[in-house]
Parts: sequence; C-alpha cells; structure tokens
Amino acid sequence: MNKSFIRYIFSIVITVESLFLILVSGVSLIYHEPVFFEYFITGVIFLILGIIGYRKKFDSYVFFAKEGFITVAGAWILMSVIGAIPLFITGEIPNFIDAVFEVVSGFTTTGSTIVDDVTALTHASLFWRSFTHWIGGMGVLVFVLAIFPSAGGRAIHVMRAESPGPSVGKLVPKIKDTAIILYSIYAGLTLIEIICMKLCGMPWFDSITLSFATAGTGGFGILNESFISYSSSVQIVATIFMILFGINFNIYYLILIGKLKDAFKSTELKCYLGIIVIASLGIAINTFNMFGSIFEALKHSFFQVASIMTTTGFASYDFDLWPMYSKTILILLMFIGACAGSTGGGIKVSRIVIICQDLANTLRQYIHPRQVKVVRFEGKPVDKETVNSIRAYIAFYMVIYFVSLLLISVDNLDFTTNFAAVAATINNIGPGLNLVGPSCNFNCFDYFSKIVLIFDMLAGRLELIPLLILFAPFTYSKKEKKV
Amino acid sequence: MNKSFIRYIFSIVITVESLFLILVSGVSLIYHEPVFFEYFITGVIFLILGIIGYRKKFDSYVFFAKEGFITVAGAWILMSVIGAIPLFITGEIPNFIDAVFEVVSGFTTTGSTIVDDVTALTHASLFWRSFTHWIGGMGVLVFVLAIFPSAGGRAIHVMRAESPGPSVGKLVPKIKDTAIILYSIYAGLTLIEIICMKLCGMPWFDSITLSFATAGTGGFGILNESFISYSSSVQIVATIFMILFGINFNIYYLILIGKLKDAFKSTELKCYLGIIVIASLGIAINTFNMFGSIFEALKHSFFQVASIMTTTGFASYDFDLWPMYSKTILILLMFIGACAGSTGGGIKVSRIVIICQDLANTLRQYIHPRQVKVVRFEGKPVDKETVNSIRAYIAFYMVIYFVSLLLISVDNLDFTTNFAAVAATINNIGPGLNLVGPSCNFNCFDYFSKIVLIFDMLAGRLELIPLLILFAPFTYSKKEKKV
Repeated sequence: MNKSFIRYIFSIVITVESLFLILVSGVSLIYHEPVFFEYFITGVIFLILGIIGYRKKFDSYVFFAKEGFITVAGAWILMSVIGAIPLFITGEIPNFIDAVFEVVSGFTTTGSTIVDDVTALTHASLFWRSFTHWIGGMGVLVFVLAIFPSAGGRAIHVMRAESPGPSVGKLVPKIKDTAIILYSIYAGLTLIEIICMKLCGMPWFDSITLSFATAGTGGFGILNESFISYSSSVQIVATIFMILFGINFNIYYLILIGKLKDAFKSTELKCYLGIIVIASLGIAINTFNMFGSIFEALKHSFFQVASIMTTTGFASYDFDLWPMYSKTILILLMFIGACAGSTGGGIKVSRIVIICQDLANTLRQYIHPRQVKVVRFEGKPVDKETVNSIRAYIAFYMVIYFVSLLLISVDNLDFTTNFAAVAATINNIGPGLNLVGPSCNFNCFDYFSKIVLIFDMLAGRLELIPLLILFAPFTYSKKEKKV
Repeated sequence: MNKSFIRYIFSIVITVESLFLILVSGVSLIYHEPVFFEYFITGVIFLILGIIGYRKKFDSYVFFAKEGFITVAGAWILMSVIGAIPLFITGEIPNFIDAVFEVVSGFTTTGSTIVDDVTALTHASLFWRSFTHWIGGMGVLVFVLAIFPSAGGRAIHVMRAESPGPSVGKLVPKIKDTAIILYSIYAGLTLIEIICMKLCGMPWFDSITLSFATAGTGGFGILNESFISYSSSVQIVATIFMILFGINFNIYYLILIGKLKDAFKSTELKCYLGIIVIASLGIAINTFNMFGSIFEALKHSFFQVASIMTTTGFASYDFDLWPMYSKTILILLMFIGACAGSTGGGIKVSRIVIICQDLANTLRQYIHPRQVKVVRFEGKPVDKETVNSIRAYIAFYMVIYFVSLLLISVDNLDFTTNFAAVAATINNIGPGLNLVGPSCNFNCFDYFSKIVLIFDMLAGRLELIPLLILFAPFTYSKKEKKV
C-alpha cells in the first residue's frame, strides 16, 4: 500500500478543512460570539499540520483502487473527527462521540442530530453544521484533487470511491475540468436558492444555512421544529430546490451546453419525478382529512416526499403523526433515494430502475431459458457486470442493515424507532419515526449505538464499499498482499 | 402452453386432496362431531371432478419450465381454495377469505391463524389444519408425480419449482425413487415424534396433530396459547424435532446409507446448528432476569430460536414481552430460515452462506481486480449463475417485501405489526410481533391485507418465482410466446 501518498492526500484534506474552520471563526466574529478562539485555534493547528504533511514528498505514484477506497473512507473519518473538535471544546456538545456524530451527520448530508435544543447553539456552530452539508454533498476529495493538480492521474480511483451511483461518468476528458463544472453548477444553484430564500423574507443567515443544507440534501435546520414554523413560500422554495438537488448533475451540464433534448430524455429523471408526483398524490389523498384544504395537503405532501426522497430530511409537518400508509410511502422513499450523481443518498433511482428491469428479465428468462434480454438504461445497454454489482450492492446493503438493527437493539428501544433510525442514517436522511421522528432526536440512543449509526451514515454516503474495505481484516493481511 | 397437461396434473392434485378430506371426515366420526357431512361431501364431489379430469387424456407431452412454474403455483392455489370449503361450510370460519387464509397458512406451513379461539374448532378441523402442514411441508406435487408414473419425465420441472433451496439435487437417478426416499424419512421421523410426544404424557390426538405441525415446520397449535401451558418435557421434545425437521433431508439419506462422515461434513448443517446455539445463548443471557433459572432461560430460548429459525412458529413463551435485543435476534432468524431441502422456510441457510462468501469475494475483488475467487459450498465450487440467481432472489425478496408492507399499511396498524406480519408470512413462520404476536392473531387485518399476506405465504413457500410467473402479465402475452 502506498502509505506516503495516502498521507499526502490526508494532509491536503486537513489543510482545506482547517481553512473552512478559520472561515467559521469569522462568522463568530460577526455575531460577537465567544467561540472565535476555539474555531480559530483548531483551524490554525490543523493548517500547520496539514501544510507539514503536504510539503513532505511522497515516495511513489503507485495508486490503485484499493488505495482509492482506503483514502476516501479514511479521509471522511479524519474530516469528521477534526470537524468535531471545535463543537466539543466550545462545550456546545459536551461529549466527543456526540460531536463526531453531529459532524458525520453533517458531512454525510444525513442531518440526524443529537442536539436537544438547536437554538442554543452559536451562529458559528450552526453555520459550521450547515456548511459541512454543503462540503459533503458534492464530495470533498474530488474537489481537493481537482484543485491540487499534482495528484491528477490517480484521481479517478478516488472519484469512483466517493461519487454516488452505480457508475461514474466523466463529463469532459479531464477529471479536473469535470469537477470544476460540477462545483460551478452546485455553487450556482446554491446561490440562486439563497436569493430566493431572501426574497421570501428570510434573514441572510437563515437563507444561507438553509440553502447549504438543501444543496447538500443534508437537513440540519436552525430551529428545533425544522421547517414547520416557516411561511408557505419558504416551504415551497425549499421543496423546489430539494427536488433540483436530487437530480443528476449531468442533466444540468447537458442543459448548460444546450443539449436540452438529451437532458429531458433521461430515464432516471423521468422515474425520479414520476415517483415524486405519485407518492405526493398518494400521501395528499391519505392525509387530506388532517389538513382540510387541498393546497395544504399538497404542499405538505410534496414537501415531505421531496425531503425524504432526496434524503434531505427537513420536515414541514410532524409526519410521524400521519397515517401508516403515508408513513410507509415515506419509508419506501427512504430506500429508493435520489438520482445518482446528485447530492442525495439512498439506493438511488438508477439502481432501482436497473434492478427492476433486471428482475423482469430474470423472470422472462425462467420462462424462455434461451432468450437473453439485456437491461437498457439511458438508451444504452447495461453490461452484466454492472447489473451483478447492483445485485451485490443490495445484498451488502441488507447485511449492513440487519447487523446494525441487531447492534442498536441492545438499547431496548422499540422496533419502529430502531428500524427507522438505521433507515434514516444509512440512507443519509435525518429524521426517522417514533423516538427519532421529526420532533425528536437521536439522543435516545446510547454511545455504542451512536457509533453504529455513525458507521451507517458514512457507509451510506460512500456507497458501502469504501468503508467495508477499510474495516475488512483481509485488506491488510500479508497473505492477500502477495497475490 | 400445454393446457391439457396442466389440467391433467390439477385433476390428480384434486383427487389426492379429496381423499385427504374423506380421511378427515373419518376423524369427525371418531369424535361424533356434526361436521362429517361437510368434509365427506366436499371430498366426494372433488373426487368425482378429479377422476373425470384425470381420465380425460392430455394432448401432448410438451412440458417446459414455464408450465412447471404455472402448474405448481396454480395447484397450490387450487388446493388451498378446495381445502377452505369445509371450514367455510361448517361455519367454523364464517368468511371464505378467512378460511382460505387459514388453509394457505396450513399448506405453506406458515401457521399464522385468523381463528380467535382455536379450542372452539372441531377435532376434525383441528386435524385438517395440522394435516395441511404435513402435506405442505414436503410438497404435495412431488408426491403426486412420484406416485403417478405417467407424468414421470416432466416431474423435474415441477420438483424444481416446488422444492426449497437454491438448487435441487436428486438423491438417486429417478425422481420417483428420490421422492419415495424423502417421504419415507419424513413419515418415519414424524412417527418417532408422535411416539415421543405420547411418552411425555400427551393424548394421541395432541401427539399426532402437534407432530404433523412440527414435521411440516408449520406451527398451528390446538390451544390458543400454543406450547406455553405444556410440560417442559413436551417443550424439549418439540425443540429437538423442530431442529431435526429444519435440516436438509439429504443429510438423513446420507446417514441411512451409512455415509456418516459426509453427512456431518455439511457446511449448511454446521452453520445451521451454529446459528441456533449462538442465537439461543444470546437470548438466554438477555432474558435470564425474566426466568431466574438457567434451565428455564435456556429451555425457552432454545425452543423459541428453534421454532423461529425452522420457521415453525410455536411459542413456549410470549416472546413479544422479551427485550428488543432478543426480539431482534428472532427477527433476523425469521429471514435466515432453515436449511434448503428441509420442510422449513425463509431465505435458507445455504443461500445465506453462499451470499456471505460471495460478498466477501466481491470485496476482495475490489482490492485485487484481477484476482478471481470462486464461492465454494459443501466442498464444491458454486457456478456464477447460481450465485447471481441468489443475488437476484434477494432482490426479488426485497421488492415483494416492501410492496407488501405498503399494501397492508392501508389498515393503519403500527409499523412493527406490519413489518412482522410480512416477515412472518413470507418466511412461513406464523406469529410476528405486537398485534400479530404469539398471544394474538391475524384477524386484526382487513380482507385486502389478508389477500396480500396469502400471496406472501404462497410466494414464500414456493420460493417467489412460481407465483411471480403466474401473475406476471408477460407470461401470457402473445408477443412473448413467439420468441
């Protein structure tokens, strides 16, 4: 394993994050909050450490898929631990595991919180929480590698390991350019949302933090009741942008370069929007009695469906009070998730579309054993290897799911809470049902369970494989190395 | 499609079932119960219909996998509907859908009941319920085809569609002989259990019905509280036989022909027994406080683990009262299920063993892309086709699971009840948690949900594919036929 190169990348990541922390310390200055020192000093210390590590040359350029996975998984854990330090030393989150939980929840764009009273946090910490969503949404490593050209050629292994979806498409030949295009779209859309929020009458701070949380499909709010007390116009703007950030960013690229026809032909886009509309109408009909007006029912159902399916996790209503049919729709949406190549989590619409076609073909093959039908996606045939890897993905997913369920059951909370907690973390959503419902938080779990859920959030965001490889004993065994 | 041959097989199945119904009418004579007429007349009518259908020659011997699946799925539905008639016309189960639910639950060896007071049923009906378990356990079609040699050559398609497990092994070259060997072992073991139960002081009727329910890993009891009020010796005998009936019957064949070494080398057997021991000890430690004595804790935990893992579904204690950790272990066991080639349900230990190896190999391949590792099972390499079909199986399973969950949620029962109800039916277990826990029954669901759960029971028992093919629109489409 090329340890020196991994150390090199880790150092760049630390450097970038330390700059972010120094930026956050600036926010505390604006609001005259007494946490400037904690953010600033943490930032400076890691800036020095990062620069030292970065300036030390690495031994070799050899960098394979294995290194890619370990680098990504390791970097995300490192980022989370460092990011938790200021929250811990300011005393705003007095337990370090809790602080790590909160920051992992931020970077992985989950939005599950262990903070009982969010409004008691400083503006700096609220900004940091929302900013981690924005950083984590598009993936920090791709960004880092794009702006540090020395790592250029090897970036594809990192991009593959960090990007959501069954396959990574480069928009343009150079990864650096691809990353810059994606980040420009991301920043542009975020800016538009901030302006829209501001136009709806929100203060700048609220507009910025909520837009960061929407853009990363994160879900951290700055009030305890999420979006419940906001005006209808704010809720509708959030709905629209949640849906926009759940779309594959390639679509926006196609639109930007004028290929509108190609953009709107996308199977994934059609399925994604179709599911949102059908699910929202289903919930609106089911909950109509609770709201009394068609507008209110549609507003809340579209908001909630967009929030859960894009794995953002905002709540415009305590959906834990809805009938079981509506809640079950939301649970199914948790698993489906957003489009590949978006900032959303879950299994992803593309995987669902491919696996459904694959299963239909499998059934057909039982009837006509000699007839071979190929799965097609976005107009192209999908090779058998990709289909089988999606089948394996689902199996991995189930294994992690059930093991997590068993591990957190030691806290003796009810089954619905446990089931929803794992669903909400592994799919990077945020709130679940019952004790982890929108009006509650994850503090009901003990520290052991919180560590399990931290693992699930990271596993979900990085699409399982990197984290499994990081913790698989055979990754480091001598015997395996020789092969 | 060879409709005349399917009609021919259906007729044989009807004939055999009508003889069973006439046998049940004999039980009502023994106990002087006023249901003789209902069972007898139903039996005679279908005997006549069956013989008419059976004597009419079929047009062609052409019989493919497609026909095999449709025959098996259709025959099981037919059997269930016919079997429900006497329960309905005696008025013991006054709604026909309920009666079908009960009989499907019997044949599929599920053991979920909609009867509020089981003790109010006649001996004849209790016997019929338990007897359906025994018939369904080993599979009625294989039996039928084995004793009707005219269908001989085509039986393999039916056997494949009806037998549990990822692959069907013929013990001896002829299917007929294989079926006879399996049924002899089955009947022999059942007889031994009946004698053991009798020696523990149970009346003959109880010994026979409970042994039928154990042998088929069914779970219908003859008391409302299942095994809770029985003596420790009866509970221990039941535990041992539940475990024995969850073992692949090939193992018994190997033992019978003296290949003891081969029998005990079985990976599936070792994993199966290993899981039972580990799960039981885990539950015993977790529930020790509730029982106070090591013997009681071990007795109940082994009973419950054996009952759930073999998918029998008896209860020696209301496990819904246990801590969540123990309940979660039981939920995981529901999905794992028994060994392939046993009478138990669930995903099957063999599939779990193969998929775990497969996932470990997949991870290894991410690290060393050029290194190919083959999954090995029972000392032999497993071909890629089988591994991929198991991955697809798990995906099918998840799709059916989540769709069922959504459909039954319209009844607005709590999530735990719904989740456990689908788990208990698709895995052919019987009781679930909360409203469908061991001290409750499935009457809390509305008829629409009951039909969904009937589908799940049949899908689970026939390993998903036959039922999916029966209901897939393309099975009957003209366009597909031409290919």
